[in-house]
Amino acid sequence: MSLIQPRTLKGFRDYLPEAMMPREWIIDTARRVYRSYGFKPIDTPALEYLEILTGKGSDETDKQLYRFEDHGGRMVGMRFDLTVPLARFVAQHQQELGLPFKRYHVATVWRGENTQAGRYREFMQCDFDTIGVTELTADIEMVLVLSDLFTQLGIDKLTIRVNHRAVLNGMLEKLGLADRSAAVLRALDKFSKIKEQGVVEELQRTAQATASQSEQLLALAILEGTNDQILSKLGELVRGNATGECGVAELSDLNQAALAAGVPASRLKLDPSIARGLDYYTGIVVETQLEELPDFGSVASGGRYDNLASLYTNQMLPGVGAALGLDRLLGALEKLGRLPNVQSPAPVFLCMFDPKHRNDYLKLAAQLRAVGLGVEVYPEPKKLGKQLQYADKQGFRAALIIGDAEFTAGQCQVKDLQTANSTNVPYDGADAAAIAAELRRLLAE
Amino acid sequence: MSLIQPRTLKGFRDYLPEAMMPREWIIDTARRVYRSYGFKPIDTPALEYLEILTGKGSDETDKQLYRFEDHGGRMVGMRFDLTVPLARFVAQHQQELGLPFKRYHVATVWRGENTQAGRYREFMQCDFDTIGVTELTADIEMVLVLSDLFTQLGIDKLTIRVNHRAVLNGMLEKLGLADRSAAVLRALDKFSKIKEQGVVEELQRTAQATASQSEQLLALAILEGTNDQILSKLGELVRGNATGECGVAELSDLNQAALAAGVPASRLKLDPSIARGLDYYTGIVVETQLEELPDFGSVASGGRYDNLASLYTNQMLPGVGAALGLDRLLGALEKLGRLPNVQSPAPVFLCMFDPKHRNDYLKLAAQLRAVGLGVEVYPEPKKLGKQLQYADKQGFRAALIIGDAEFTAGQCQVKDLQTANSTNVPYDGADAAAIAAELRRLLAE
Repeated sequence: MSLIQPRTLKGFRDYLPEAMMPREWIIDTARRVYRSYGFKPIDTPALEYLEILTGKGSDETDKQLYRFEDHGGRMVGMRFDLTVPLARFVAQHQQELGLPFKRYHVATVWRGENTQAGRYREFMQCDFDTIGVTELTADIEMVLVLSDLFTQLGIDKLTIRVNHRAVLNGMLEKLGLADRSAAVLRALDKFSKIKEQGVVEELQRTAQATASQSEQLLALAILEGTNDQILSKLGELVRGNATGECGVAELSDLNQAALAAGVPASRLKLDPSIARGLDYYTGIVVETQLEELPDFGSVASGGRYDNLASLYTNQMLPGVGAALGLDRLLGALEKLGRLPNVQSPAPVFLCMFDPKHRNDYLKLAAQLRAVGLGVEVYPEPKKLGKQLQYADKQGFRAALIIGDAEFTAGQCQVKDLQTANSTNVPYDGADAAAIAAELRRLLAE
Repeated sequence: MSLIQPRTLKGFRDYLPEAMMPREWIIDTARRVYRSYGFKPIDTPALEYLEILTGKGSDETDKQLYRFEDHGGRMVGMRFDLTVPLARFVAQHQQELGLPFKRYHVATVWRGENTQAGRYREFMQCDFDTIGVTELTADIEMVLVLSDLFTQLGIDKLTIRVNHRAVLNGMLEKLGLADRSAAVLRALDKFSKIKEQGVVEELQRTAQATASQSEQLLALAILEGTNDQILSKLGELVRGNATGECGVAELSDLNQAALAAGVPASRLKLDPSIARGLDYYTGIVVETQLEELPDFGSVASGGRYDNLASLYTNQMLPGVGAALGLDRLLGALEKLGRLPNVQSPAPVFLCMFDPKHRNDYLKLAAQLRAVGLGVEVYPEPKKLGKQLQYADKQGFRAALIIGDAEFTAGQCQVKDLQTANSTNVPYDGADAAAIAAELRRLLAE
């Protein structure tokens, strides 16, 4: 019989242990931080009725959707984000859930997009959202969660960029251009490509703005300075327009609250240039930038929306939340050499010399696990050199060496695999306390 | 615009927080136990080339496979278990992985099967396997992992049923029926339905066994007694046949090793009636039964196989491992009332009275999180009764009550939400140590 070639689909990847261990570490960290704010886990199916998924998505996401007919003749699709499933979920279960509802969701999503530039068709997201709250407290908390999360991940050089959709909207109202926000946003979005003059021209052409209006819009979008300077400038630009003034006031409150709650001042940056989604977000919007990788793009983004689930329920469900791009962050941490060097999930390696002592090895390992020390027992009585070579490659921290002579003498050799130093420790079979103590000393180094 | 009905597909389900929190607890527990033995995490794509998935599967799994043509015209399928992806994975990456290779994999699988009797089309598995080892140590370890896992899950009344495929094979060789093992297994499998006389008749009809042969096969399959009695009886039945004798010897070694490593004697039961898979398993096979739910079926099963990846590589890859049926186990623990009563991921609830103190609330919460105490801040200054009603429904353990007067007086009320008792604790804004101490005292109760 001819062999089937073992391969993954284009745009998909396997996670080997060296990639999977840091991924589990990031997920555990995110979950711990989310939970510490009272966000609760949920899960939803990978497959949904196609109409659920295509209801809200853009043409872009519709095109990327994995879709097919299932065994029962239903048209189904694989989720492409966690927001549409959340909307369906909250609409379906709102009676049971109650409001406010704070959830996190760590799950895989699929998009059949072009796979250039290291993008995959399968990736994991770690979202958190607060549903049913209009108070700014929830928006502030989103920023606090992101700040805590990156601190816990050991990333200090981080900028959380914050804007408010009402600032530009207020400006547009003030200029009488409120009906042209989409065209204005599209033009401002091209700033990095076409620069000041290009944007001013494009605003006049596509949004029918006057030259003066275009200059004012551009001035707002490229404001720079300290947060206080930006707040002061924004205040001037929107003065007299209630929408804009409200947006500036919320930005100011959020800035002060974040500082009060301990977010380092250097980490939070008011940035009138970020927009995030033409239609979806309606208030505070947030992006995060790793200062050491400025071109890497935002690794966590979010914002406030007025109505999560309008496609599925008449109940208004306002909310605010953010998504952590897990695989993008993993790539960034790898690039920065910031991943913890955990190679082996169990730190201790127990060599096996003498098959007639197999039960003694298994007993010793069980005694150490019972006091919280992970131990891998080499399964075969191969040559010591071969076993230590394996232990070295797998990244164990310590090895236990105990053969027939040691069992008889009542001792065990504890070997530091980084320094190659060894210590003899008493072990009588009944009690592994001395070995455990020596291992703890060594692991704490 | 008319609303889209928010609903999940037939055979699929949402996990609300009260179901998801215990599910995360089981997954965390399984991962911790697997890791403590040196098993490492991997992940593979949900989608595979169809030929990878249909290569090994039975007609049954082929029929249940979710399959479709992707955007690039490739025929793809959604994984239906974690074993076929493991085989493909090891064949593809064997150079990088090295042997022995110990992995665990916690992931979702999909089967478009009939959904009667509480079975779902999407469920999670938690597999662990050791690849590249023929030594019995790996088989023993599988039993130790399962025993530890259930202990950690708080399940004491558990029977791990163990058999060895070589015992029946040896018996068949001895009787000259080695070429009829499939028919014999099918007949023995019907024991609970058609009883002794039915099995004896079926063995004669479908496996062309004589009456005497049929009686001997049946005698082997329904052996009862202590493990020592069973080993002794099996020894007699297969005496003179090397295959059978080897199987009995391994069962004996495994039994002794498990006892030496601390598995309670009552937990391990040699059971010649279990078979698990006509072709796949070749040595030790294992099932687990919850004594309080005997009809619930096995919640974790596994065994030894000779050659994991014969479809994808010529290298022989023997292995041994087991799969934990996560959702089935979750159902069982729920039925037994054995799920931990963790309703809120953060134990502390902070009431919000006075919007002008919002920053003070956020600061206090941050101070407590910094010392490891999860705190949910109610986001809106609603009436205290309404906030406490929410706290009660969400299952918080403690509430902090601090309004304008308390901020001025420099104190905070810590309320036990189970007893409704309150304690006043000093809090000057700079240091939340006294509140943290009181909360720790209360949470430890």
